[in-house]
Amino acid sequence: MKRTHHCGQLTKTDLGASVSLAGWVDSIRDHGGILFIDLRDRKGITQVKFDPQDDAALGEAAAQLKPESVIAVSGTVALRPEGTANASLPTGEIEVNATALEVLNRSEPPPFPLDDAGGDKVSEDLRLSYRYLDLRRPKMRRNLEVRHRATKAIRDYFDSQEFIEVETPALFKSTPEGAREYLVPSRIHPGQFYALSQSPQQFKQILMVAGVEKYFQIARCFRDEDLRADRQMEFTQVDVEASFVTREDIYALFEGMLKKVWRDVLGTDIPTPFPRLPFADAMNRYGSDKPDTRFALELVDFTELFKTSSFKVFASTAASGGAIKAINVKGLADLTQGELKALEDAAKALGAKGLAFIKVEGGEWKSPIVKFFSEAEKAELSARLSLEEGDIVFFAAAEWERACAILGRVRLDAAQLLVKRGKLALRDDDWKFLWVVDFPLMSYDEERGGYAATHHPFTAPVPEDASLLVSDPKAVRGQHYDIVLNGVELGGGSIRIHQPALQKQVFEDVLKIPADVVESRFGYMLRAFTFGAPPHGGIAFGLDRIVALLCGTQSIRDVIAFPKTQRGQDLMAQSPTPVTPKQLKELHIATAVPVENG
Amino acid sequence: MKRTHHCGQLTKTDLGASVSLAGWVDSIRDHGGILFIDLRDRKGITQVKFDPQDDAALGEAAAQLKPESVIAVSGTVALRPEGTANASLPTGEIEVNATALEVLNRSEPPPFPLDDAGGDKVSEDLRLSYRYLDLRRPKMRRNLEVRHRATKAIRDYFDSQEFIEVETPALFKSTPEGAREYLVPSRIHPGQFYALSQSPQQFKQILMVAGVEKYFQIARCFRDEDLRADRQMEFTQVDVEASFVTREDIYALFEGMLKKVWRDVLGTDIPTPFPRLPFADAMNRYGSDKPDTRFALELVDFTELFKTSSFKVFASTAASGGAIKAINVKGLADLTQGELKALEDAAKALGAKGLAFIKVEGGEWKSPIVKFFSEAEKAELSARLSLEEGDIVFFAAAEWERACAILGRVRLDAAQLLVKRGKLALRDDDWKFLWVVDFPLMSYDEERGGYAATHHPFTAPVPEDASLLVSDPKAVRGQHYDIVLNGVELGGGSIRIHQPALQKQVFEDVLKIPADVVESRFGYMLRAFTFGAPPHGGIAFGLDRIVALLCGTQSIRDVIAFPKTQRGQDLMAQSPTPVTPKQLKELHIATAVPVENG
Repeated sequence: MKRTHHCGQLTKTDLGASVSLAGWVDSIRDHGGILFIDLRDRKGITQVKFDPQDDAALGEAAAQLKPESVIAVSGTVALRPEGTANASLPTGEIEVNATALEVLNRSEPPPFPLDDAGGDKVSEDLRLSYRYLDLRRPKMRRNLEVRHRATKAIRDYFDSQEFIEVETPALFKSTPEGAREYLVPSRIHPGQFYALSQSPQQFKQILMVAGVEKYFQIARCFRDEDLRADRQMEFTQVDVEASFVTREDIYALFEGMLKKVWRDVLGTDIPTPFPRLPFADAMNRYGSDKPDTRFALELVDFTELFKTSSFKVFASTAASGGAIKAINVKGLADLTQGELKALEDAAKALGAKGLAFIKVEGGEWKSPIVKFFSEAEKAELSARLSLEEGDIVFFAAAEWERACAILGRVRLDAAQLLVKRGKLALRDDDWKFLWVVDFPLMSYDEERGGYAATHHPFTAPVPEDASLLVSDPKAVRGQHYDIVLNGVELGGGSIRIHQPALQKQVFEDVLKIPADVVESRFGYMLRAFTFGAPPHGGIAFGLDRIVALLCGTQSIRDVIAFPKTQRGQDLMAQSPTPVTPKQLKELHIATAVPVENG
Repeated sequence: MKRTHHCGQLTKTDLGASVSLAGWVDSIRDHGGILFIDLRDRKGITQVKFDPQDDAALGEAAAQLKPESVIAVSGTVALRPEGTANASLPTGEIEVNATALEVLNRSEPPPFPLDDAGGDKVSEDLRLSYRYLDLRRPKMRRNLEVRHRATKAIRDYFDSQEFIEVETPALFKSTPEGAREYLVPSRIHPGQFYALSQSPQQFKQILMVAGVEKYFQIARCFRDEDLRADRQMEFTQVDVEASFVTREDIYALFEGMLKKVWRDVLGTDIPTPFPRLPFADAMNRYGSDKPDTRFALELVDFTELFKTSSFKVFASTAASGGAIKAINVKGLADLTQGELKALEDAAKALGAKGLAFIKVEGGEWKSPIVKFFSEAEKAELSARLSLEEGDIVFFAAAEWERACAILGRVRLDAAQLLVKRGKLALRDDDWKFLWVVDFPLMSYDEERGGYAATHHPFTAPVPEDASLLVSDPKAVRGQHYDIVLNGVELGGGSIRIHQPALQKQVFEDVLKIPADVVESRFGYMLRAFTFGAPPHGGIAFGLDRIVALLCGTQSIRDVIAFPKTQRGQDLMAQSPTPVTPKQLKELHIATAVPVENG
């Protein structure tokens, strides 16, 4: 019985046709002895009618069917009786009067409901253990399709821009100073290891040296990080590099790509170019280097005002180079003690000692600290924060970046409280893209007592700042850019250093990596750069994250067919596992714990 | 100085235009003090003229340039003087009179010539050590582009057929009974390991259970095999699976795909459908399950004839169930003693005791064995082999498959000898595709004393043979198919078993895998199949191999940007390497050899 149509296809134009369908039994209804089966395949649902008055044996066979069994049916397309059409289905006006049935496979009762609502209620572990059932849910099936369409749109776009996709190795070299890597023991070279590639960064720069000029790749990457809600051991990165380009070229290239993806997948036109925000402004205004700009709630700086204040806490912070920041959350003066406590805890987690505030209620400023403020201070606060009845202002006084980050956290959490009250609308499909630029090239690592690259050591300095590279690394801005959407960092990149002498200086004189380590880790790159490396730059971003946003889900696990748990386990196939002593011996390794199941 | 054109773009229609180009110095020629620089980028070459009479300082700067340095130049497009045009270049009628030069990076002298001919002469190790220079060679750059175009064509094709690309994990579960795998120790689960996926086989079958129906993926796969000339540790597989399909559907799908790839990449129309050859016929006629059908030279069977022969060697082989095969290599009677010896050695390597032959020279049969043949035997040999002056016939007498394989090897080697003599033409672009079908489902493993799956244990039997599965496994044909091109196996696949009981029977009753091992390795698949697995089948083939054929190269290393050597080494970045004791400790493993460089 060969399929003639799929289950989303038949309509009134097919009345009377003899058809064969195949798929899964979605549901079975018995109306006075007549059975109606909703037959489902990837394209849709068609109602199939088994009338025992037409064919008793067939009716009996159909009566044995259970949901999720796989069947093929033949029959004739007929109009549904008046009043029984289902306007929500493309096939809702017709049904197929079955004349033959083949049971291709039976199904045990599924351990959880396979509709969207029912499946959402069960534990994720159960869904992951039976992923093949979870993926039958309409929502999950749609997520896989969106991922395919987004990936296709990205590839079509780069192809149209004359980029070529080049595959780079997953089995790479260990570089232990970066993020934690997965190691792969070599059988041929005893005691030696490959590392699974964390990103094609080095290979793509080498491809620029090779003269490829326009490279992209949708690449699997691996990082042995502690797995948070939004991380996976392996993830997919859209990776791009181009030669003879400026930051402007990369901005335009990526805006074009995102425009195409949003149009192809969602039918939405996103306006370009995207706004650009220097890192310092992003921190000052939003307290974050990945601000959600769907709402204002901006931070206001009062460092100058409080430098001479009699409120010692603020004055001493301001005097010692710190910052005093405030944020007016309009209309949140009614927050509960519990909500206030939660905001305070969040602030403390970022290093705040507490969370000073002023509420405006009944025309009065209610606050534990307002008594320390002068009239002039109060007037300036009131004016610059546009204080009104029902507002609540929070303060942070700390080292500048920390003060910003504390109120950045408060800003996001307070916004959620406003959403809960119906005082703020945050729509998933209000797409607010922006570029964050002019990051510092280097950050001072207090613990280690030295500079570390803010992003990575290959980032080129902004030309105007390059002369300060050795004398004042912290003052140097990098040619780095992040792309941010609704508070989520989608990716980032930079114009790279292409001069071997400058790259060596960054490694040795700024980052203070010993020369022999530079040679063993990056020697081949420095050598490559002496053979005519062109100026180049690029970008990388997480495909999983983009697809999650397109699907309107918070978890990248919902857009990965077979994700691991946060403990790195595949609950369906059951891995990792112990291995046999023979396998270990061949690889010249031993476990440092007992092998349980050799 | 911003690029206005690429180096393959400017022609007579641009005369007088002010342009800026950027790229690599391909060559420098000095004609009476005037310098001509061929400037190269990914798109082509443009001649740039530096005349010291126009600008002495500029001429001096240009005179400092060395090949492979990276420069940007501005200038005016001018006609080349009459008689100096280069018809082989799209830009060959013009040159750019330079007015400005910026040196973006200098280059050391490359360690080998970067033209195709020069680069082909140096050792592959040197090319791999400086892969960024090797990839600048026109041939290698073209290979990367062909790979991109072929991959794009494949993806566009499957998308047009409504297949969706689904990514499956690289970090999978160890299944030690298959090919040797790469293991990845878990940091979170001490003593436990992931294995790098050898193919998405299990995941793609699970996706069919999930109702995806039409899946494809261009997937990285990993196998720790002994690396032969045409193998890599990691390789790229085009992987496909579909539900509710027959073998015919898969044949048509793949013929369509290959047609598109050959048309998009080479502009060649390959005729479809492809011929189909049962495995037994392939062995009987060509002595190979991946026959090169660009030439005939078919094997002829004489088992019946020699059953009653007085030539004991043949008679006893025939009587004991073996086969007597012969091949007439027309026009090779003039082969040298050395060539004959080489053919004999190749036959012996496959288990032949020797290589009996008959030459027809000067009207006579010259042969050490012809004296044992009767007149009737000679007459039948002569007639069925169409023996003529200058021919040479080789014989094999052995167990059937071995006799076929021996003459299959002789056939290929003898064909090369004919090519050398100009008596046979074998063109790389004479594309002879075919399907080889009806393989035995199981092979008897003499050493282990049991049956093994000829391809893999998920292959469904041909329905007519299914009843013999347990009683006579060797008689059962599988629904497997291989696709072969010019003697190269491109890939293969099968219709799979979708009935959980049958799959269990294959594991336990035919392959005799202990039930607990079946449970730990494949239990989750058997369980998945109880929840409504649809009938399904698919195929997988090596992308690297296809691209190598499209590029006309013998080595897949020429179509992989950064291949490893046959010892599994990355000669450019230098891996594998020893790792630090800290890394090993975190992963709960120890090396079983001294760590050299911890």
